[in-house]
Amino acid sequence: MSPDIEALIRKISGLPGLGPRSARRIVIHLIKNREQVMEPILNGLENLYKNVKICPICSNVDSFSAICSICSDENRIKDTICIVESVADLWAVERTACFHGQYHVLKGLLSSMEGRGPEFLMLDQLQRRCEKNKVSEIIIALSATLEGQTTSHYIKDFFKNKNIKITMLAHGIPVGGELDYLDDGTLFAAFSARN
Amino acid sequence: MSPDIEALIRKISGLPGLGPRSARRIVIHLIKNREQVMEPILNGLENLYKNVKICPICSNVDSFSAICSICSDENRIKDTICIVESVADLWAVERTACFHGQYHVLKGLLSSMEGRGPEFLMLDQLQRRCEKNKVSEIIIALSATLEGQTTSHYIKDFFKNKNIKITMLAHGIPVGGELDYLDDGTLFAAFSARN
Repeated sequence: MSPDIEALIRKISGLPGLGPRSARRIVIHLIKNREQVMEPILNGLENLYKNVKICPICSNVDSFSAICSICSDENRIKDTICIVESVADLWAVERTACFHGQYHVLKGLLSSMEGRGPEFLMLDQLQRRCEKNKVSEIIIALSATLEGQTTSHYIKDFFKNKNIKITMLAHGIPVGGELDYLDDGTLFAAFSARN
Repeated sequence: MSPDIEALIRKISGLPGLGPRSARRIVIHLIKNREQVMEPILNGLENLYKNVKICPICSNVDSFSAICSICSDENRIKDTICIVESVADLWAVERTACFHGQYHVLKGLLSSMEGRGPEFLMLDQLQRRCEKNKVSEIIIALSATLEGQTTSHYIKDFFKNKNIKITMLAHGIPVGGELDYLDDGTLFAAFSARN
């Protein structure tokens, strides 16, 4: 194997979910399909590399304009902001098409283990935005993990007495989930929040 | 999500072993690590796209010269050729460092289902090479699948009475394998080939 190809495989194997074996398969697939597969991916990556921008308002990524397509969409509701952990989570919420407001993407969850403090939440910036746009509701849509819940409560505390409704995603049985296979915590939450 | 990013995710999700979810994770990882990860991979892919070549002698891929590094290596044995199905298999044999001869990479295994006939084996080209380099042994290193074995036997037949020793990889218990977990076919092969 030529050193160039070896170096590329090493780099690709560091991507999330990939290892040396899958990286080799991908590189061979690219080599075998130089025009049909490698060229479009190469052009797409080049385009992304040149044009990707982080929105200064909500920290979403976009490849067109400085202000992202969600913040600049005149048809979206301005007075509701949904807080998500990452752009991946923003995309997940967008796929449900059940939310038509604005977003606030965190730089990460609070974590004393990994040294992430409140500055990763950019709450001052969010508060200024709330005041400017007369935001009436903040939806905290963070994972139901320890770090996610700690961060949720920190944010809830921060906005206490600021005249903004703070809501969190409901906990309960996943749609399609069978009771028998649920963990105790989820079943307990589903019982507590019964309606 | 901007249409550019969506298009790139769709292309990446078509790579072997990947799907929409892993492609999204990869693209987000690339965006988050624009300088440290995206740039080196982009440069590596660009380099590969421009420089990748198929060796006209053995069909190995290389990114440096027209004749691949194995065919042009003066220190490698010239009179032994190992037949492999793909460049991935060539790399696998090279990693063992147990073979110091030449290769012949097939364009694919014989398969009536997928319409691959003997022309995919390029045996005439291999025969001319054998005559020119006075090759004394051909090692058939194909998978122990139905297609692999069919192809092996076809190649063995082709070189009958041509004064070249034809060998095939041994079948038996994988190193580290437990008898209890072996399939019957492998155990049978291991018994038959006991030594």
